[in-house]
Amino acid sequence: MDFCGIDILSVQQFERPDVERIFDVADSMEPFAQRKQVSKALDGAILGNMFFEPSTRTRVSFGCAFNMLGGHVRETAEIGTSSITKGESLYDSARVISGYSDIIVMRHPRAGSVAEFAAASRVPVISGGDGVNEHPSQALLDLYTIRKELESKRRSIDGMRIGMVGDLKHGRTVHSLSRLLKLYRGITFNLIAPQQLRMPGEIVAELREAGHEVRETENMAKGLHDNDTIYLTRIQEERFESRLEADIYRGRFRLNRAIYTRHCQPNTVIMHPLPRDTRAEANELDDDLNQHPNLAIFRQADNGVLVRMALFALVLDVAGEVQQQVHPTRWYTGRRFE
Amino acid sequence: MDFCGIDILSVQQFERPDVERIFDVADSMEPFAQRKQVSKALDGAILGNMFFEPSTRTRVSFGCAFNMLGGHVRETAEIGTSSITKGESLYDSARVISGYSDIIVMRHPRAGSVAEFAAASRVPVISGGDGVNEHPSQALLDLYTIRKELESKRRSIDGMRIGMVGDLKHGRTVHSLSRLLKLYRGITFNLIAPQQLRMPGEIVAELREAGHEVRETENMAKGLHDNDTIYLTRIQEERFESRLEADIYRGRFRLNRAIYTRHCQPNTVIMHPLPRDTRAEANELDDDLNQHPNLAIFRQADNGVLVRMALFALVLDVAGEVQQQVHPTRWYTGRRFE
Amino acid sequence: MDFCGIDILSVQQFERPDVERIFDVADSMEPFAQRKQVSKALDGAILGNMFFEPSTRTRVSFGCAFNMLGGHVRETAEIGTSSITKGESLYDSARVISGYSDIIVMRHPRAGSVAEFAAASRVPVISGGDGVNEHPSQALLDLYTIRKELESKRRSIDGMRIGMVGDLKHGRTVHSLSRLLKLYRGITFNLIAPQQLRMPGEIVAELREAGHEVRETENMAKGLHDNDTIYLTRIQEERFESRLEADIYRGRFRLNRAIYTRHCQPNTVIMHPLPRDTRAEANELDDDLNQHPNLAIFRQADNGVLVRMALFALVLDVAGEVQQQVHPTRWYTGRRFE
Repeated sequence: MDFCGIDILSVQQFERPDVERIFDVADSMEPFAQRKQVSKALDGAILGNMFFEPSTRTRVSFGCAFNMLGGHVRETAEIGTSSITKGESLYDSARVISGYSDIIVMRHPRAGSVAEFAAASRVPVISGGDGVNEHPSQALLDLYTIRKELESKRRSIDGMRIGMVGDLKHGRTVHSLSRLLKLYRGITFNLIAPQQLRMPGEIVAELREAGHEVRETENMAKGLHDNDTIYLTRIQEERFESRLEADIYRGRFRLNRAIYTRHCQPNTVIMHPLPRDTRAEANELDDDLNQHPNLAIFRQADNGVLVRMALFALVLDVAGEVQQQVHPTRWYTGRRFE
Repeated sequence: MDFCGIDILSVQQFERPDVERIFDVADSMEPFAQRKQVSKALDGAILGNMFFEPSTRTRVSFGCAFNMLGGHVRETAEIGTSSITKGESLYDSARVISGYSDIIVMRHPRAGSVAEFAAASRVPVISGGDGVNEHPSQALLDLYTIRKELESKRRSIDGMRIGMVGDLKHGRTVHSLSRLLKLYRGITFNLIAPQQLRMPGEIVAELREAGHEVRETENMAKGLHDNDTIYLTRIQEERFESRLEADIYRGRFRLNRAIYTRHCQPNTVIMHPLPRDTRAEANELDDDLNQHPNLAIFRQADNGVLVRMALFALVLDVAGEVQQQVHPTRWYTGRRFE
Repeated sequence: MDFCGIDILSVQQFERPDVERIFDVADSMEPFAQRKQVSKALDGAILGNMFFEPSTRTRVSFGCAFNMLGGHVRETAEIGTSSITKGESLYDSARVISGYSDIIVMRHPRAGSVAEFAAASRVPVISGGDGVNEHPSQALLDLYTIRKELESKRRSIDGMRIGMVGDLKHGRTVHSLSRLLKLYRGITFNLIAPQQLRMPGEIVAELREAGHEVRETENMAKGLHDNDTIYLTRIQEERFESRLEADIYRGRFRLNRAIYTRHCQPNTVIMHPLPRDTRAEANELDDDLNQHPNLAIFRQADNGVLVRMALFALVLDVAGEVQQQVHPTRWYTGRRFE
């Protein structure tokens, strides 16, 4: 795939070599994200960071990734400040906003809206999430994290075993991640969810058709014991008819240090797309694992910057030049590596 | 006029040579806005982009224009986040905020507020709109668009014929544009509006006194047929006593491909200040004209960046240096010119 | 104290030499804040300007200070856009956000929250205010202003007399300023407040123990007459049981030109943390003093940029390099010095 000038709207637009190209470029971004070097590859370029739905972390992550390549960021943070509320079409918005910037990241609450916007845009568009539909940079950073974590343990994605835990029916992150993993070989999926919150049958069928093994269970202990990685999700309470109904599932799909130690293999990587709800009644991933070396959730967030830098560099065709326009950081960066 | 250090608050502060100076500088900004070159003329300068009223497009347009000259942008996007809500005077706000930046763009819902703010500011202030009063950069970009569109058809502003359509009573854009056109020679104004929404008599008198021809009609078909440019506006529903009253005018002042083909001369340029309301019940300018070569509305929005760059360059006195501090863009910019 | 990499959370972490080091560095920032020179010391660095509570002026002041050192600013302006509202812990927020930037400024409505955030952050954190608790950069800029104002009158902080006026019970600015002044020698504090709004006994005791003279009075005229500086505060109406109760104090603690001329010594510097409420019923500091040469409130706001630049430069360890990476400003900066 030639990334130059394309839109990034869905994980389904990628083949395996595309994903690996993104990951290789993401690897090359480490000196910048770790603040050893400053790149000027996008000096003078402008990102239109258009978030028509609240999202501090994804918005700031994209913005910082662009800054780390030397570019400017202009942004909007809320639907309330947008002419989209005045009856303007996405077509008009896209035609206008794409005249101001070199590339656009867009988040919008309505499924399909980002693709509609991208079709009218005169500059490349990267989806920052469109409602229940897709959040491709999240899926990419999840898979990138799996790759890195397993490599550090001398394993690879091919042949890996992954446990996906929780509300697998509603979570867009596990859907997209599954579709990326499908591109690899011989994955074992341990899908741990209550009967009513199972992974959609369509995705399970796709995975099996591609030659992967899919095991489904409602039993947390059973599902946990044979994985290289477990990927936890939130019980998406707001999708249930009542809080009482959601309560049925609560507590059965928590992970804490005791459960991890008892049921998981010692090297199992722990992931979560964040934010996790750390209030006592939710608490799908307990704080008592915060210092555990296999807890990858914060490395996962860090990797988001690398993957987003890679997407910018590839789409704007500067991946080869990022290393040419550099100078060392001159300020204190010590604490980051403590 | 010496632009250096002045405030830009009203179209009425300009004579014709001033307007032409702005347009000449705007022309010189094309290589930057078209992303062929990056300028560092304002490297290190800071714009305070103070929007005390929601406005994604105007705010982002000013911000990008400043970035394209190499400057930083600090901004506020909402009245709710402002100490102005805590009883602070505009005088105090201006004294404080002008200590942080090199130039300020301000939008505020109250007419007169930007001038009051500017009087206390220690740096130049450009109005981004003050309620029903003025929005000078919009009027300038409208006239700049007319100039460019007519030039491409080997005509000029002097002697042109313009049809203004819709709610001419309430629309600040048509008022300000008329006052700029007044500075030129021999314009014919075809004002197409219902009796109750006519252009204010004061403005009509000014135009006639300056030697222009003003024709007023309620008949859309009649008004459309003899123009170089038509400028459409929204029926400003919120100014009417009732929706029913507004409904009286609705549908009589729409433009679509069939009406255009039947009533307008083949070369007539179509303009609209945007956003247009594309919902079926409003729809003053139909989507079926989106691909028409004479539809200038998106070029109009693009021109906004050029005009705003020109205002920054003139007021901060770097118009002569913009071309000196350049380097070519190094990233993908292809799709913009498809 | 070695500033390199530390958090700035409280004025109580400083000894006198630390404060003086900050002020010396702040002095060295004048050519940049006055727009004579542009520094590139933090070229490529990223500030995460995280305001989880509305604050235009403090947010923009920190952001501009960072831009003036050459850095990028990414920010959030409201709690509503934050995953903190979704049950995420400050620990998680800090771990994630500190992966995106080189330094973080954080404001949060809950006392203690910034320290909690800083403990988990992998980059240095500067408090932008945490509710009723601390706002250390405000106290530093207040004291820096006193130093500069007195120096221009050939006096010094040691031995000075300061009148603090108004609601001394609830105002965090007077508490923090007192604790900084405590580090100096022989200060006379004239605390002018109604009985019910007196400075907390704990702070008065600290000041006396450190050898300073503290005089308390309810009598405005009496308290005003013997000071080098007076520091006015707002009657914090929202802390009273009823508006009626607050009304008891209203009007007794106003300053205007007549009162100043009658009761204050001619050289007395007038300060206020801003914003002041200029509505007639509040009006603790009258507009009729706006042109008075001893009114330091806008110089105070300007000094905020210098002090914040100094904090960034010290914490990121570039104070010695700021002068090395400079070029002159090339744009119009005249009006600022009129």
